Amino acid sequence: MESINSLISEFARLPGIGRKSASRLAYHLMLSDEAVSEKLAETILEARHSVKICSVCHNISDQDPCSICQDTRREKSVICVVAEPKDLLAIERTRQFHGLYHVLGGLISPMSGVGPDDIKISSLMSRLSDQTVSEVILALNFSVEGETTAMYISRMTNLLGVKTTRIAKGLPAGADLEYTDESTLANALDARKTL
Amino acid sequence: MESINSLISEFARLPGIGRKSASRLAYHLMLSDEAVSEKLAETILEARHSVKICSVCHNISDQDPCSICQDTRREKSVICVVAEPKDLLAIERTRQFHGLYHVLGGLISPMSGVGPDDIKISSLMSRLSDQTVSEVILALNFSVEGETTAMYISRMTNLLGVKTTRIAKGLPAGADLEYTDESTLANALDARKTL
Repeated sequence: MESINSLISEFARLPGIGRKSASRLAYHLMLSDEAVSEKLAETILEARHSVKICSVCHNISDQDPCSICQDTRREKSVICVVAEPKDLLAIERTRQFHGLYHVLGGLISPMSGVGPDDIKISSLMSRLSDQTVSEVILALNFSVEGETTAMYISRMTNLLGVKTTRIAKGLPAGADLEYTDESTLANALDARKTL
Repeated sequence: MESINSLISEFARLPGIGRKSASRLAYHLMLSDEAVSEKLAETILEARHSVKICSVCHNISDQDPCSICQDTRREKSVICVVAEPKDLLAIERTRQFHGLYHVLGGLISPMSGVGPDDIKISSLMSRLSDQTVSEVILALNFSVEGETTAMYISRMTNLLGVKTTRIAKGLPAGADLEYTDESTLANALDARKTL
């Protein structure tokens, strides 16, 4: 069972996969056709080997510049700043944003020793220097790190005279007021709109 | 993003992995060192290619007979019958069972067209024919399929005169009587023990 146990350990190393899920996955592969395991292994290697970091927005892609930066139909005047590629994907799924992106590759976190120079802030500033960008939207988490990073970036963009906005805090879709935590509710009240 | 999307789809095909977890896994691999993806792919292939089905108990293993069937310290007189290799693993984890196993590879299910000949029942009967086995423990789920299979096997083992038992129904460890469903509670009452 040596090799199956190694596979279980390998799966359990992945984010969000506990020991139980890892063993379910391993047994699933062991009991399925060999082609299933081969296809999975091959797809992992192919994706990992073809992945590139876009030199403009730092998103992961198989082209450089990435397909979004290359797309002539996207508005060049708005840049949405996100921490990670998966946040970009979440915003793309809304189909509501048609501008460009900038992936920071993390958030400023003094606690973990991540400073402004460790994430892609200076390359964001370079993108703003030719004045084609009229708005920077900060789509960062509302965590301490997200707030710190948003504050830092907005100070710099304000110096450049670029309008900087942040995605809104409020109640999630379908939320029940009764079961919403006070802090979310306070934010929603604070951000109320005139109808 | 073609290759990353294929990887997400490939992960989402695995049991218990939804679209969200699949994309988290894919992005994790894309953003980690190449060695991480290579190690995972290699471990999958190695495990899948070295896996064998034990010709005695039908468990998956990298040896045939498997390490349990080969182990001289295990009691040869008791066979625990399970549906799948993962059930065997669950029982091994208790460290309370020191006999041998028999993996049926499924349960009788007329609804899904699985009959007694589609699972390893006849090979179980062959193992009982030399009279070295004095007890068969049925560790099958308490589902309709589990009940049907247990009933079918016990009729045949009784004909051979081999004592056949089934793991007990009752309250799970740490359960609260107040929140236990009636059927579990009824079973627990029914299976009460004299102290």
